Amino acid sequence: MLEELKQKVYEANMDLPRYGLVTFTWGNVSAIDRESGLFVIKPSGVDYDKLTPEMMVVMDLNGNKVEGNLNPSSDTATHLELYKAFPEIGGIVHTHSSYATSWAQAGRDIPCYGTTHADYIYGPVPCVRCLTKEEIEDAYEENTGHLIVNEFKRLGKDPKAVPVVLCKNHGPFAWGKDAKEAVHNAVVLEEVAKMAYRAETINPRIQPAPQELQDKHYNRKHGKNAYYGQTTLK
Amino acid sequence: MLEELKQKVYEANMDLPRYGLVTFTWGNVSAIDRESGLFVIKPSGVDYDKLTPEMMVVMDLNGNKVEGNLNPSSDTATHLELYKAFPEIGGIVHTHSSYATSWAQAGRDIPCYGTTHADYIYGPVPCVRCLTKEEIEDAYEENTGHLIVNEFKRLGKDPKAVPVVLCKNHGPFAWGKDAKEAVHNAVVLEEVAKMAYRAETINPRIQPAPQELQDKHYNRKHGKNAYYGQTTLK
Amino acid sequence: MLEELKQKVYEANMDLPRYGLVTFTWGNVSAIDRESGLFVIKPSGVDYDKLTPEMMVVMDLNGNKVEGNLNPSSDTATHLELYKAFPEIGGIVHTHSSYATSWAQAGRDIPCYGTTHADYIYGPVPCVRCLTKEEIEDAYEENTGHLIVNEFKRLGKDPKAVPVVLCKNHGPFAWGKDAKEAVHNAVVLEEVAKMAYRAETINPRIQPAPQELQDKHYNRKHGKNAYYGQTTLK
Amino acid sequence: MLEELKQKVYEANMDLPRYGLVTFTWGNVSAIDRESGLFVIKPSGVDYDKLTPEMMVVMDLNGNKVEGNLNPSSDTATHLELYKAFPEIGGIVHTHSSYATSWAQAGRDIPCYGTTHADYIYGPVPCVRCLTKEEIEDAYEENTGHLIVNEFKRLGKDPKAVPVVLCKNHGPFAWGKDAKEAVHNAVVLEEVAKMAYRAETINPRIQPAPQELQDKHYNRKHGKNAYYGQTTLK
Repeated sequence: MLEELKQKVYEANMDLPRYGLVTFTWGNVSAIDRESGLFVIKPSGVDYDKLTPEMMVVMDLNGNKVEGNLNPSSDTATHLELYKAFPEIGGIVHTHSSYATSWAQAGRDIPCYGTTHADYIYGPVPCVRCLTKEEIEDAYEENTGHLIVNEFKRLGKDPKAVPVVLCKNHGPFAWGKDAKEAVHNAVVLEEVAKMAYRAETINPRIQPAPQELQDKHYNRKHGKNAYYGQTTLK
Repeated sequence: MLEELKQKVYEANMDLPRYGLVTFTWGNVSAIDRESGLFVIKPSGVDYDKLTPEMMVVMDLNGNKVEGNLNPSSDTATHLELYKAFPEIGGIVHTHSSYATSWAQAGRDIPCYGTTHADYIYGPVPCVRCLTKEEIEDAYEENTGHLIVNEFKRLGKDPKAVPVVLCKNHGPFAWGKDAKEAVHNAVVLEEVAKMAYRAETINPRIQPAPQELQDKHYNRKHGKNAYYGQTTLK
Repeated sequence: MLEELKQKVYEANMDLPRYGLVTFTWGNVSAIDRESGLFVIKPSGVDYDKLTPEMMVVMDLNGNKVEGNLNPSSDTATHLELYKAFPEIGGIVHTHSSYATSWAQAGRDIPCYGTTHADYIYGPVPCVRCLTKEEIEDAYEENTGHLIVNEFKRLGKDPKAVPVVLCKNHGPFAWGKDAKEAVHNAVVLEEVAKMAYRAETINPRIQPAPQELQDKHYNRKHGKNAYYGQTTLK
Repeated sequence: MLEELKQKVYEANMDLPRYGLVTFTWGNVSAIDRESGLFVIKPSGVDYDKLTPEMMVVMDLNGNKVEGNLNPSSDTATHLELYKAFPEIGGIVHTHSSYATSWAQAGRDIPCYGTTHADYIYGPVPCVRCLTKEEIEDAYEENTGHLIVNEFKRLGKDPKAVPVVLCKNHGPFAWGKDAKEAVHNAVVLEEVAKMAYRAETINPRIQPAPQELQDKHYNRKHGKNAYYGQTTLK
């Protein structure tokens, strides 16, 4: 069942340690098959060097396990809410990657200080508030998903243009059209978080990059007349 | 004698350079066999690439060497005091890992800023005071153990819920149910120390994570109704 | 056509990930054949592990593609302007290397704090201003080149003595007599940016190195009576 | 001639990139044969991956090349002055290792903040002043050696107890009983510099470790009654 997608989700999970985004089992990747409405996610707490494609868990969008012997990631309910609310995304990543998590712990949005950021993320990386006591005690992971979705709505953010978010006191989520692009965006976020950290130390009176530069770089890669890369290779 | 335990302690010691926690010989792991009351510890000052399971030293809880040709770690008396006072632990690690040691040198507790910390350590990582001149000159390593034990008593800390400590001007100790878990907690501590360092730089007015979030994450992994990971795999 | 130069440009591009200067495809190297007036540059957005010497694109100094199936780097127009204005250079590198880019995001020149810097770069590393809205919307990459050239003229900088520059809110460019030396200078810049960052944190009242020390080290390696290295090996 | 010593100096030089202490050719190791009064040093500006034991250069203490086809390190005169003034040392290392060089650029002594430092270096790591214009223009490398020697005399420092120094705006030198111990001390210095940097960020009101703790740790490893390590293994 969904063997190809399991393989892809497996590979995307294995990319997390390869890119230095996870310690131990602190991360998970999922991807959705929009036709069947089923998504594939990493099992909870399994070491990366013991992971196999067959271990991947298949879930439906009501939160029922459809296939798999293992428990799905403890963050499954968050992935599920994001898939339901953002129909344009196909893959999701959660990590505790070091710099992004440091910003999340600091409870701050990451301002757009340069073109590395603007190339992939339109405007600041939002840091959503910590959940309330009630939200935590009731349905923690599901409410994490609700909060992200509501904040994107409130701020008027397009999840395709802003494919990353920080959860205060917790860590980052990233997404994309598929599992591979989601991991790519998680790597971008970590780089962006690292350079913003250093740039603020170098110049405490730093300002965000001018809007026109942000527009230029975002559109150079993602706009209608994008001219970065090889159309024929895509 | 205790060949299986020697092998495990050997492997746990070899994990220290693998996880980037030690430079040269600056670290040691031990584990105890509670039935016989004997513990196995790394020999002092031996390079990791020359270490073998046979070199491990067997000690009793009175500090007598029971087996082994080499001197035990110079920190043996500290391990011994911890084993005597904390009957629930089975393995201990000492390192000079970079970020944790930096906090120890700074003489500060590491506040709990997020879920990475809360997943494994309940509340702040305590930093115990420097020993007095008398404590240093009398029985330095033994007194280090006494101090940790007394501070945990004074602060009402449960060594299972807080499996790590910083010794001011020195470095960290970590422990667990066995040598492997102790090394795991030493890695967690280093990650937590790194992210707390960066989070404070990003936001100098940072506050600890809300208590209810700390409770949620600690209990999600360690509470009676823990739902992280695979029960069947443990 | 220019097969030897393509091979060298290919190898110089492959050195970028080897030296840790690029993430994904965020960098490009070119080199020019001054006799024919043609330069060879990396194709745009191609992964380093899929790159081959044959993929390199040949351009003339009017911006026409002379050979190659792929689109040239999106930064080609910047390279072109630098080749036209600086006849003494033979290779150019652009990266988003982490520390240099952090200084560029902070919008600050990197002061010369020591001999590592002075050995290769005479005086501070200049950070040129962000482009205006008009410059960005008109011909962004070409104008980036113009701005660098004009700033070097205005500041009286010799591009051989200052083989690196930062573009505000963007990142570094480096150059040299050929592609290999350009990459070498990009590595130097990253090291210099890292140590200047740390030195300012250690001593917020830090001052640049005395001019006579800067002169001594630069001339020890590059002056008429240079005595560093092996003349016979060059 | 001195083939065994050349081999050892070669190996010690090759350890510099292995320990991450050098970029490109920015480092050199030498060792002296006290009987003949000759010392062996790395040739200037040769890449580490092209280095062979045969390339090592033999010098006498008057600064004459006794054997070797290549030019000796450009820092040879500094090594020479240290060998002449410190008869108890047998090997010397110079690097531009990142954290130690950052402290040198900042022009600050590294305070002893903990036992990692105290285990190998007695008291703060001294940072000697920049040379004067006259000292630079006259005999730069020789005067660097004189300055270190004079500062150690003035401060009453024992080069065996303080086997490292920082030269302001330049970088570190380290030494030991032989080339291998000198490299060991260079690694210690880099670790100590890194942790002191971080500790000051964590606690801006940090104080040095109490003198009695510094004494205890230094003597535990180096005193008359040292009990660290294996006497029989030395």
